[in-house]
Amino acid sequence: MKGLVYDGPKQIAYKDQPDPTLREDTDLIMRITHSTICGTDAHIIAGGVPTCVPGTILGHEATGIVEEVGASVSNLKAGDRILATCVSACGYCRFCTAGMYGQCLTGGWILGHTVNGVQAEYARIPYARNSAYKIPESLTDEQVLFLTDILATGYEVGVLRGKVSPGDTVVIVGAGPVGLSTALTAKLYSPQNIVVVERTAARRDFALKMGATHAVTEDEVHDVVNRLTDGLGADVTVEAVGFPEAFELACDLVRSGGHIANIGVHEGPATLHVEKLWAKQITLTTGIPSGLTIPQLMNSIATGALDATPMITHRMSLSEMEQGYDTFLRPGETGAVKVVLSA
Amino acid sequence: MKGLVYDGPKQIAYKDQPDPTLREDTDLIMRITHSTICGTDAHIIAGGVPTCVPGTILGHEATGIVEEVGASVSNLKAGDRILATCVSACGYCRFCTAGMYGQCLTGGWILGHTVNGVQAEYARIPYARNSAYKIPESLTDEQVLFLTDILATGYEVGVLRGKVSPGDTVVIVGAGPVGLSTALTAKLYSPQNIVVVERTAARRDFALKMGATHAVTEDEVHDVVNRLTDGLGADVTVEAVGFPEAFELACDLVRSGGHIANIGVHEGPATLHVEKLWAKQITLTTGIPSGLTIPQLMNSIATGALDATPMITHRMSLSEMEQGYDTFLRPGETGAVKVVLSA
Amino acid sequence: MKGLVYDGPKQIAYKDQPDPTLREDTDLIMRITHSTICGTDAHIIAGGVPTCVPGTILGHEATGIVEEVGASVSNLKAGDRILATCVSACGYCRFCTAGMYGQCLTGGWILGHTVNGVQAEYARIPYARNSAYKIPESLTDEQVLFLTDILATGYEVGVLRGKVSPGDTVVIVGAGPVGLSTALTAKLYSPQNIVVVERTAARRDFALKMGATHAVTEDEVHDVVNRLTDGLGADVTVEAVGFPEAFELACDLVRSGGHIANIGVHEGPATLHVEKLWAKQITLTTGIPSGLTIPQLMNSIATGALDATPMITHRMSLSEMEQGYDTFLRPGETGAVKVVLSA
Amino acid sequence: MKGLVYDGPKQIAYKDQPDPTLREDTDLIMRITHSTICGTDAHIIAGGVPTCVPGTILGHEATGIVEEVGASVSNLKAGDRILATCVSACGYCRFCTAGMYGQCLTGGWILGHTVNGVQAEYARIPYARNSAYKIPESLTDEQVLFLTDILATGYEVGVLRGKVSPGDTVVIVGAGPVGLSTALTAKLYSPQNIVVVERTAARRDFALKMGATHAVTEDEVHDVVNRLTDGLGADVTVEAVGFPEAFELACDLVRSGGHIANIGVHEGPATLHVEKLWAKQITLTTGIPSGLTIPQLMNSIATGALDATPMITHRMSLSEMEQGYDTFLRPGETGAVKVVLSA
Repeated sequence: MKGLVYDGPKQIAYKDQPDPTLREDTDLIMRITHSTICGTDAHIIAGGVPTCVPGTILGHEATGIVEEVGASVSNLKAGDRILATCVSACGYCRFCTAGMYGQCLTGGWILGHTVNGVQAEYARIPYARNSAYKIPESLTDEQVLFLTDILATGYEVGVLRGKVSPGDTVVIVGAGPVGLSTALTAKLYSPQNIVVVERTAARRDFALKMGATHAVTEDEVHDVVNRLTDGLGADVTVEAVGFPEAFELACDLVRSGGHIANIGVHEGPATLHVEKLWAKQITLTTGIPSGLTIPQLMNSIATGALDATPMITHRMSLSEMEQGYDTFLRPGETGAVKVVLSA
Repeated sequence: MKGLVYDGPKQIAYKDQPDPTLREDTDLIMRITHSTICGTDAHIIAGGVPTCVPGTILGHEATGIVEEVGASVSNLKAGDRILATCVSACGYCRFCTAGMYGQCLTGGWILGHTVNGVQAEYARIPYARNSAYKIPESLTDEQVLFLTDILATGYEVGVLRGKVSPGDTVVIVGAGPVGLSTALTAKLYSPQNIVVVERTAARRDFALKMGATHAVTEDEVHDVVNRLTDGLGADVTVEAVGFPEAFELACDLVRSGGHIANIGVHEGPATLHVEKLWAKQITLTTGIPSGLTIPQLMNSIATGALDATPMITHRMSLSEMEQGYDTFLRPGETGAVKVVLSA
Repeated sequence: MKGLVYDGPKQIAYKDQPDPTLREDTDLIMRITHSTICGTDAHIIAGGVPTCVPGTILGHEATGIVEEVGASVSNLKAGDRILATCVSACGYCRFCTAGMYGQCLTGGWILGHTVNGVQAEYARIPYARNSAYKIPESLTDEQVLFLTDILATGYEVGVLRGKVSPGDTVVIVGAGPVGLSTALTAKLYSPQNIVVVERTAARRDFALKMGATHAVTEDEVHDVVNRLTDGLGADVTVEAVGFPEAFELACDLVRSGGHIANIGVHEGPATLHVEKLWAKQITLTTGIPSGLTIPQLMNSIATGALDATPMITHRMSLSEMEQGYDTFLRPGETGAVKVVLSA
Repeated sequence: MKGLVYDGPKQIAYKDQPDPTLREDTDLIMRITHSTICGTDAHIIAGGVPTCVPGTILGHEATGIVEEVGASVSNLKAGDRILATCVSACGYCRFCTAGMYGQCLTGGWILGHTVNGVQAEYARIPYARNSAYKIPESLTDEQVLFLTDILATGYEVGVLRGKVSPGDTVVIVGAGPVGLSTALTAKLYSPQNIVVVERTAARRDFALKMGATHAVTEDEVHDVVNRLTDGLGADVTVEAVGFPEAFELACDLVRSGGHIANIGVHEGPATLHVEKLWAKQITLTTGIPSGLTIPQLMNSIATGALDATPMITHRMSLSEMEQGYDTFLRPGETGAVKVVLSA
């Protein structure tokens, strides 16, 4: 089969690879029908994720058809149409039993990272019982594809850990795929205002289509939030960029008693103004998704309350994977948000 | 009457002051029977709290007898033995109705800060209905005195916001009065280990008497926590110092999925290693107490489950207030933890 | 002034009454601009609420203009346009400080019950600071009128205590004003299905306009819920009738691990099938509202996410109060849901 | 091997049975070292559990040594000293992933119920990965044996679902093994009063040794609770009997805003006085344990905060199983609380 192999910084190729096989009886093998590219893949290619060694097939977001299941994967069978989540969960360690699949002692984010991933024709999915979901007949692959990572991330790490509530004013710093997913899923809790902060004008326009009520620059956001909240600050702020300034902005915009939810992947430390925050009774959270909300979000997709397909700006075939990366990595020129590769 | 007046950096005097009078019908006037000195008072004297202007009577922790109540203070009457909490709460603003008295839009920590305080013979207590509690007959003033601030702070901001649970390993950075109060009240939730980190040997010994199961230096703490938690890290870490290094230590010692509760009063920013924490699913909280747990803690004092009186290292009369400060400000020499001044 | 006086079972009259005056400095006097009639008023008239003695002016839902405030009502002033909530809260007892205003030791539901109410030209509002809210300029009286009781009840006691979540299947037993308010406010949490159970065909049609996705009879509901939930049962069931059979139906339709939220006012006991429920890990809640969510719900009304005005089936003047009752008490013939009386 | 076989109502025999073997690769086989008898076993023998068919080996509480593990039981191995919980959890269904192991779609309480149990020399433990725990070297089998059911039940279904908090007044109706376990584990949350209601004088005395602060009869309990709570009622009431009168007593003793936690196994319905409870804002919960708190409780046993071994009133060998039952089923004469059978 073919797969997109990371061959070291700035070197990728979609090329022949051995077909995956079952290694553990908790594995399954899937034939990929749809895969997509993530900002984290860009991190890897830039050389920023040393735990991903050259030779690894990338990709942690895919739908497909089950080819074969290990002996203990009793909830899925060959022929099932499934999605595989970005996080692999054993289901029995202290973190998995606490619902924190992202912290799984032997799993977590390993797919397309420390084991071969799903930007390929076939893939081995570890811990399949707790890490793959059957797709309801009424939903298409494209409708559920982003549940594998960005929708679950925006929802679980942004909306739920940030405790977005009806009537709230929510600020989301960054209108990349995860920031947009946060805006989209935040709507399920009917906040009053969703303010997206973004430097790129085209992304601001896009955010307004994806649920933001306001899309502004960093220079504008303080005034807007003050006006919307009578100077108190936002109920919830979400960091969805991964840079210190974005983090500090999220911390600066929150009201007393409010929540700061960090989603961004950071490569270095940030400054925390504890001299301003110590008495403000804030709650700051971090995390990666478990995927445990996927069945719930599928319900919301089924009713039309959640539709992430407008984020698909480009559709290509799996064999055009390299071109897909090229498109995804130059969003300023191509306008790419999510590039979907299908079989 | 006499009161301890802050006359500018490093200048205090216990001297004649006008008797306090009712200003609002939500006030009460109390005759002080016991007062005590707090680390925050030391901050003020050092000139570190510019919102406290010269001429202010200090002090925000006291018990006493009600002399007179405003027309709307229907839950207390002259002659009642009460404690006044460090935080004044209107009881009806958006923060008070959410139980966040420390964020009260017109109150919060004002006593001995922006209005005259309780290191005096008499004091005016604003918003008395929601900011003072009758002391049960079965309890002495000394038994409840520290509920006015440090016990409520350690319990609400450390133990409750940190979500200490039975079986947990808790790390408390700092064995000052608030750190010790956190250790003491943490025991109400039966954690397995309470590890106090403290530079001063005498304070480490003291911490062991106040509930700590381990009292160690910064150099030792990583090894101890690793050993106690199989290398996972502490379930809850509490910052009770107010310095960047202490904060960073608290962040460094927490396990995946754990809680960091900041109590310390900070004067400058800290470095937050989001590059290590973004995926660890941590929750970091700050805050100041509401005092709403005081009735609950009084119950615990009544049963003997909570006894903070061993923290009283020095007892003096109100008229010895200046000497009390001198003793409190040189803990290295005097061994002072809490100095109690009584009428 | 005139007011609607309960003169004993089945005897009411809109007649001359003394103007209300301030009794406590926590009171305010309001001139009523809009009032409405509640099912609880019908209970009183039927003689089912013996704590309401003859001679009482009824009514616990109104908007109006502040005429005069007591000395301690510092957050409102003469001329303010306000709504008064059905529950009066002292703001400082153990229940009020825990956010349970309905359990206030000296308040709770007293308006139009144990003290004169608001179906009148003027009314005294006790504990005004914690029991009345200024209406934002952008909202009309009719838009916020139902926040005084039914919307707050449906939201707090049904939706929030029932923990309605995105993607849920919710069953609401009863399509009276409170059941409809539950359907309407449940939408703020984006459940997948809102199934209303109601005997009257007209009310079922109405429910579909107010947010229900399914409106069915008791005979149909088991099949519908089974189909929607693969036989598991509803995530949340809400009892909004107040009869034993309705309560037992709510208990019967819930899934393992689900929530049963009772809103209905009951006059007698119900049978609880603990032999079926003991192992099912259910949570059953009761309650009356605090009104603390009113500011949040005002935000939702402002965005258009919440609009209860279609429940106003009849508009009359205050002087037509007796006719208003006649209309409200014969809903089968008049189609009345809510009758609004305005000055 | 030998096992205690239920041969129909009132017929049991400890007799030869086939050795258990692995059926699924999620099973393990354990050699029993300690087993014990539960009230539920008495229910079965009385014929009250028709889902348990004649021919079944009883028992759902045991410690032992792993003999053999299925291919997917990667967290345990032959020779490990373990305890097997009373609930078998697949670990991946919607209930298991929500932490509700008792509701597992293919597991739950099956051991010694719908599959052969652990009152035998050997047993097959289904879903072993999520249903068995390694015993720490520092703890004896007897110290942890009751974690398999009664301690986890009392703690999870009584204390945690009832939200016992420091300073609370807790009422536990029934001083059987589960009621006593609730008293014992409630202490981890430092309530002020633990009032046990029990008809049998000997059990009341025992309750006082196991953590109760008051042990009273049904006739006395109202006065005692009123006195302890100034007439408000208990913060938390726990039903640990399984009879309608006990349930109704628990509902009657709770305060406004309080929690009623049902643990008892009921065979028929109870009367719920919703006419008294609808406005009281109570929370009523039911459930069976997941065992997920077992590691946490092991920590508490290790520190000495939790010691259930005094409940062992009788120790016998496995071969004396029939005599063990005889002793357990006549507690009035034998004084039996828990009878432990060891290899």
